[in-house]
Amino acid sequence: MPKGSTQKVPIQTDFDTLKARLSELAHFSSVIALLDWDKQVYMPKHGAELRAATFSYLAGLLHQRFVELDADGLLERLRHELNQNKLDADQTVVVREVVRTFDREKKLPQKFVQEMAETVARAHGFWEEAKKSGKFQIFAPHLEKIIALKKEEARLVGYKDSPYDALLDPYEPGMTAAQLEPLFADLREFLVELLKKIKKSKVRQNPKMFFGNFPLDRQRKLNELVAAKIGFNFSAGRLDESTHPFTITINPGDVRVTSRFNPRDVLYSISPTLHEAGHALYEQGLPSEHFGTPLADPVSLGIHESQSRLWENLVGLSLPFWKYFYPKLRKEFPKPFGKISLGDFYQNINVVKPSLIRIEADEVTYNLHIIIRFEIEKGLIEGAINPADLPKIWNQKYKEYLGVTVPNNGVGVLQDVHWSSGLFGYFPTYALGNLYSAQFYAAAKDATPNLEKAIEKGDFSKLLNWLRRNIHVHGRRFSAADLVREATGEKLKPEYYKKYLAEKYSKIYRLE
Amino acid sequence: MPKGSTQKVPIQTDFDTLKARLSELAHFSSVIALLDWDKQVYMPKHGAELRAATFSYLAGLLHQRFVELDADGLLERLRHELNQNKLDADQTVVVREVVRTFDREKKLPQKFVQEMAETVARAHGFWEEAKKSGKFQIFAPHLEKIIALKKEEARLVGYKDSPYDALLDPYEPGMTAAQLEPLFADLREFLVELLKKIKKSKVRQNPKMFFGNFPLDRQRKLNELVAAKIGFNFSAGRLDESTHPFTITINPGDVRVTSRFNPRDVLYSISPTLHEAGHALYEQGLPSEHFGTPLADPVSLGIHESQSRLWENLVGLSLPFWKYFYPKLRKEFPKPFGKISLGDFYQNINVVKPSLIRIEADEVTYNLHIIIRFEIEKGLIEGAINPADLPKIWNQKYKEYLGVTVPNNGVGVLQDVHWSSGLFGYFPTYALGNLYSAQFYAAAKDATPNLEKAIEKGDFSKLLNWLRRNIHVHGRRFSAADLVREATGEKLKPEYYKKYLAEKYSKIYRLE
Repeated sequence: MPKGSTQKVPIQTDFDTLKARLSELAHFSSVIALLDWDKQVYMPKHGAELRAATFSYLAGLLHQRFVELDADGLLERLRHELNQNKLDADQTVVVREVVRTFDREKKLPQKFVQEMAETVARAHGFWEEAKKSGKFQIFAPHLEKIIALKKEEARLVGYKDSPYDALLDPYEPGMTAAQLEPLFADLREFLVELLKKIKKSKVRQNPKMFFGNFPLDRQRKLNELVAAKIGFNFSAGRLDESTHPFTITINPGDVRVTSRFNPRDVLYSISPTLHEAGHALYEQGLPSEHFGTPLADPVSLGIHESQSRLWENLVGLSLPFWKYFYPKLRKEFPKPFGKISLGDFYQNINVVKPSLIRIEADEVTYNLHIIIRFEIEKGLIEGAINPADLPKIWNQKYKEYLGVTVPNNGVGVLQDVHWSSGLFGYFPTYALGNLYSAQFYAAAKDATPNLEKAIEKGDFSKLLNWLRRNIHVHGRRFSAADLVREATGEKLKPEYYKKYLAEKYSKIYRLE
Repeated sequence: MPKGSTQKVPIQTDFDTLKARLSELAHFSSVIALLDWDKQVYMPKHGAELRAATFSYLAGLLHQRFVELDADGLLERLRHELNQNKLDADQTVVVREVVRTFDREKKLPQKFVQEMAETVARAHGFWEEAKKSGKFQIFAPHLEKIIALKKEEARLVGYKDSPYDALLDPYEPGMTAAQLEPLFADLREFLVELLKKIKKSKVRQNPKMFFGNFPLDRQRKLNELVAAKIGFNFSAGRLDESTHPFTITINPGDVRVTSRFNPRDVLYSISPTLHEAGHALYEQGLPSEHFGTPLADPVSLGIHESQSRLWENLVGLSLPFWKYFYPKLRKEFPKPFGKISLGDFYQNINVVKPSLIRIEADEVTYNLHIIIRFEIEKGLIEGAINPADLPKIWNQKYKEYLGVTVPNNGVGVLQDVHWSSGLFGYFPTYALGNLYSAQFYAAAKDATPNLEKAIEKGDFSKLLNWLRRNIHVHGRRFSAADLVREATGEKLKPEYYKKYLAEKYSKIYRLE
């Protein structure tokens, strides 16, 4: 059959063929996920070299299969049916999303993809060296090359207003710089103000009071308890340890999270565990009967992050949560917690302190780290910022927004791996996740009488059920913007997050 | 280029193409190995269903790639060069072995392979049910079908003397029923005699004296110490836990073993750990620069088993080994070992007791379990035994050779998974492994002054180096028979194993 022909093949047959091809892709993704998980969790050192070769071989096959989705003009025919509104609701979602991703990929020539891959692979070592020594110029030429390629990517993919939009799109489909700018400007102003007030507060905290001796096997059991209690299904997942905590889905019955552990500090593990379990609850809640199709895919990185941040912060750093868990923590580790009241505990797990490092930031300052990165990377991609000026601009913004002085580039502009990996347009999804999370949580509370009373009693099912019904079950049926509207009745509004922070930290820091 | 053409393409180019295709196969094998390892060690329960689908999808691709080895007539051309003696030594081995495996596979039509796969997949559940209930007839029709298919396989593959030879070949290339028969008949007679003497011995043993409380984390550390001490490289491997211990190679830098643990019995883990570490030392010792080609493949299952049995039994149940390790075991677990002398310990880890179950058998009776299976499966394949008579014949042989009465088929003819999986011709490699192991160990002792003195001092490197130089480094360069000759200067002789058993157990049981 000639490519693009729309005759003779019934829609259902074509759709079944698409599903069969997608299921092959899913097998590849599954294998690649396992290779990745194993690499980060259990692979012995000397396995690395050939593992990398196996990994890229499989990634190559995955790409090949992806291209072959359109073999015999399948996607063209289905696109035609989609445009003629001849597909049913589920088929519409699947075809719409597959075609969207496919069209983007098709615009990137193999040669470009290869050059990008080689460039970031080469850049990685230089970034590491630069970060270690603090010498930005070691990394600078590689970063310039990466930025040039990302600009080229935006040109190839196409965009309406800003080239940055083309880079945002794969992480947060539909989001644009023009939407983010006022959102983040407003948020920045609020956060800088709130931070000023907090800095003036006379409240003193001492999280070091939590330090002690916490045997790792008992920490692991406690973290498993926490994850299981909020709803993580251990029959369909695992919790292991890795340097950088992450969540990965092998298949719908096998969603794995990792956490990190410190024998001196049990709280070092709880937040990452809740964060990753939050991601995992989303993955475990996607409709598994549609596995392999966009109907069982997460909407966007921002929506994914809303699930992790909701459980990590809005729940995991709240008084109701610890009303339930603190007695358990005390019982397991009477030293030091036996002598610390719940009030003191709550007061001291919620410390706001501007710092240099994003991944160590508290709820209030975290988004400022993101906004700085957004402003800079948007400037880099639009050409308003010269890569050579990066350290200067970075340090200025850290001074201005957070009030901290960057002593060297290693803990400044070089701290994150993202740009060295070509991840531009990724950072904003972290902040969006925070904004979404507060709006979702507010909606869940509105819809669910005594939600926090239930949490105090260790019943997390009401919250999880709300998330299951309003977020997880939809897969990629809606765009992020539409999902927010469907779930909360409103478009995304930063007011929910601002209100959440203002109320919580006014109490903690006794602000007027 | 027409298939089979030998013109125009230089040998080296063709050989490089073959190596490139083999390296693709290696990536697939690597992934399949990881999927398998993970399934047995860490996969959560609900991951099983889709994991099975991913596994067969990958296995299908591996098979497809295997068939494509000959694309463009590559193998035909290389076979021609091989037959004309135009290949260098390494090329000769690679082409000879690839062509050998390829030819065998090619003789099995896709339809046959599929029917076999489906039959054993279906049979598995019935075997499990039959084993549980002891009802042979539940499994009988499936076993009959499998035997019929194995006969058909032998016919398709071809053979000279016995159809059984065609089934032995993939596990122990070059071995035949005609060679095994006198070997096993001689061994059986010797073992039955030795067993009779041991039964009459007045020596009394009590391995229950070793029972106690052994925390699992300390057991794991001890097993890691033992494996590392004999030479297992933990930078290029792992030791985990699984129901059935196994060794699996992801790639040459990543060879994984598992063991099993019992909190009441630390010795429950040591033997399996030594057994699997023995397999792993072989895998870690194969020449990694040739990975993916037969130059880095093990010779046969029998040779592989010789490495595991050598470390498990000839070393791991010997006095020199425990002269070194017993003080460490005593120090780690003073209860109960503080009160048990090394002599008593040695005496009681070497108990000979005829039993029903192969995998629990001691060194003396183990091969009788194998010989029974060999005699039966050879009879089944050659048509001399009717599958319906299996339980009767099984029970008769157990009575005759081992002197034990089989109370039900679950612990009798249904105990092993092998036949239900279509593994006919596999069992003899276990006994061959024992025979090889004693001959290798004797040669190593001959060639290495003070080998056992070194072991007493915890220096296992002399033995490992001998194995590395005489077995491991050769990959699949030699056939098993030639390797035995190369390494020991003689053909395979059961006398070494008989002598080893006779000397060891005459002392332990004070036989005349």
